[in-house]
Amino acid sequence: MVKVAVLGYGTVGSGVVQIIDDNNALIKERIGDDIEVKYILDLRDFPGDKNEAKVVHDYNIILNDPEISIVCETMGGVKPAYQFSKDALEAGKSVCTSNKELVENYGPELIKTARANNCNYLFEASVGGGIPIIRPMNTSLVPENIQRIMGILNGTTNYILTKMAKEGADYADVLKEAQDLGYAERNPEADVEGHDAGRKIAILSSLMTGKTVKFADVHTEGITGIDTVDFEYAHACGKSIKLLATSEQTDAGYVAMVAPFMIGADHPLNGVNGVFNAVYVTGNMLGDVMFYGQGAGKLATASAVVSDVCECARNVGRTLPCVWSEEKLELADPSASVRKFFVRVKAEGENSVADVFKDAEKIRVKDGEFAFVTGEMSEADFKLKLESVNGVIKSIRLA
Amino acid sequence: MVKVAVLGYGTVGSGVVQIIDDNNALIKERIGDDIEVKYILDLRDFPGDKNEAKVVHDYNIILNDPEISIVCETMGGVKPAYQFSKDALEAGKSVCTSNKELVENYGPELIKTARANNCNYLFEASVGGGIPIIRPMNTSLVPENIQRIMGILNGTTNYILTKMAKEGADYADVLKEAQDLGYAERNPEADVEGHDAGRKIAILSSLMTGKTVKFADVHTEGITGIDTVDFEYAHACGKSIKLLATSEQTDAGYVAMVAPFMIGADHPLNGVNGVFNAVYVTGNMLGDVMFYGQGAGKLATASAVVSDVCECARNVGRTLPCVWSEEKLELADPSASVRKFFVRVKAEGENSVADVFKDAEKIRVKDGEFAFVTGEMSEADFKLKLESVNGVIKSIRLA
Repeated sequence: MVKVAVLGYGTVGSGVVQIIDDNNALIKERIGDDIEVKYILDLRDFPGDKNEAKVVHDYNIILNDPEISIVCETMGGVKPAYQFSKDALEAGKSVCTSNKELVENYGPELIKTARANNCNYLFEASVGGGIPIIRPMNTSLVPENIQRIMGILNGTTNYILTKMAKEGADYADVLKEAQDLGYAERNPEADVEGHDAGRKIAILSSLMTGKTVKFADVHTEGITGIDTVDFEYAHACGKSIKLLATSEQTDAGYVAMVAPFMIGADHPLNGVNGVFNAVYVTGNMLGDVMFYGQGAGKLATASAVVSDVCECARNVGRTLPCVWSEEKLELADPSASVRKFFVRVKAEGENSVADVFKDAEKIRVKDGEFAFVTGEMSEADFKLKLESVNGVIKSIRLA
Repeated sequence: MVKVAVLGYGTVGSGVVQIIDDNNALIKERIGDDIEVKYILDLRDFPGDKNEAKVVHDYNIILNDPEISIVCETMGGVKPAYQFSKDALEAGKSVCTSNKELVENYGPELIKTARANNCNYLFEASVGGGIPIIRPMNTSLVPENIQRIMGILNGTTNYILTKMAKEGADYADVLKEAQDLGYAERNPEADVEGHDAGRKIAILSSLMTGKTVKFADVHTEGITGIDTVDFEYAHACGKSIKLLATSEQTDAGYVAMVAPFMIGADHPLNGVNGVFNAVYVTGNMLGDVMFYGQGAGKLATASAVVSDVCECARNVGRTLPCVWSEEKLELADPSASVRKFFVRVKAEGENSVADVFKDAEKIRVKDGEFAFVTGEMSEADFKLKLESVNGVIKSIRLA
């Protein structure tokens, strides 16, 4: 019998309890053992809830119960989640988490603690919600030199951008609608400024390199500057605009960033819409692979946590491989990455564009301005050239 | 030191040797041990090849060498691959294979043999080439009741259909071109009649259900009946035509089939083009997830084999979980599955269509005939209704 404690009976935590309950027979068949949620830790009581009797308020009850071999940390935040996780691991209890903030900040330390105590710190749900990506990176892409990862890693911004693309709606209107529907927070900064996606690409970059990539070092740009006219241009050339979190090997080193990108119609990321997320990985042998699914949501995210629980149950006393050392990876400046750029310019800039960007492909959808797409060049080259153009409105990277 | 033997120095086998060689340092870092190909078994000699000295012609050299802990079976076919695999497993050597025919026919037996000998029979490369799908099904989708799998699982037919869609080319012309480029066999039957995809969906269906689904029981229809006019209709309603391998739970039981389907523009499988493959999985908790990548090709397929080799190296003396019993699953007749259908009819059939399919959405692209899309109904209902329609040219299922 595998006995599990769930920390935090919120959206994800209650989903974990539901899946272990509803799919119990099937999980038993696959892991070869009975599985049961014994405790739910929460500050609140849940009178009338079917799991009311399992709710406890004191973490020590869980920590001191030798029957508990797996703890699901679905609380979020660093305090007290860090200490709870650390204590569980030191007691030899595996921890399965959906907490990207904790994983980004303390991942390698907690992995090391797990290893020292013959248990596991697993975090499939911390990136891409229900999409299997962490375990495939740890167990399937093992022989690959991963050259690039491009991810749509935030459901809120992808919902907003998809709505803007399909309905020609304004950013502010769609954000308000998303807030009313509960898809966006009242304070949407973490999503719309790219911080949530930034933490997730920091985690994926760490797994890609085996070292620690810090979110603080990831260059982040959000979607607040994207407007309906940008989408008119995108439509005119068959592209979409997505907030991409990218990590790539360049001649100058690893570059990681979050920024809006225009993506061509033929690219698999182009069709990733609404609350769906996807991670597009390029290996030196495998070529391109993509993992697609719901990037958020109660049951999708909880399924990833329970998937980790099953792996822990199958590997009692054994630490699963995860190459993520505490050694910090110094990221290179994005200026070395090479790509094409989309640029919007006021009509007055036409001559200067012709002088500077000789192979510019022009696009016209509106009076008084035009846009063009550059050839491939480094970000540094592009920035330098752009200084000689008059009336630049904005630029967007091309994927 | 992990010492590996590769059986068959053809396309995939030589790719395995290349990846272990080129990515050696990186693999060592991730599996924590040195890895080396010690033998290559082939009937031929390879004078001048850098691995010439590793080539042996007698399998017993490999079988009797206690240093060899992992055998890569990249020969294809059942004889002698079955016996070689069985012998290796009985000697406690893990086997990693790309051989879908062998896996479909003897998978559960070889898995059982591996378990009895504390080693592994792994087959990531047998379905979807380089796409990680077998290991995610075994280790990530564990808590999911998988309700449906829809896969584009054959690169040759997807290449042909993509060419037909993009260039308005005839089936026969594109097939010839694919044969000249080496993308299709001189005898293309296994691909174009859906047999290759059928074996692969049989393997995935077995992992989905935990029982054995036989290819012989999978209903298969190929792409030889698809013509340029079908694509004109598909374009007119924003759809594509793909050869799908599907497996689903219906009220009557599990239904597995391979057949051409029309797929709407919004479906992620719509954009899977050329030699790319994808597996679209629907779980009862997770919702939809998709795994996308190169379905064939030397290095992509070999990467999946080497990924299995790494898992074996990390799990010496331990059999990884794979729920696939020898108990046969009786598939239900496809007549119970429910969907929409696209139907082409000669002009004379217009009145009978109006009588029988009251909610038909008509599409016109050509004189003398028309097409329509039905509402949702079971295959059995559809077949019955179609008998009352005059001048039916053909029908294609909608995904």
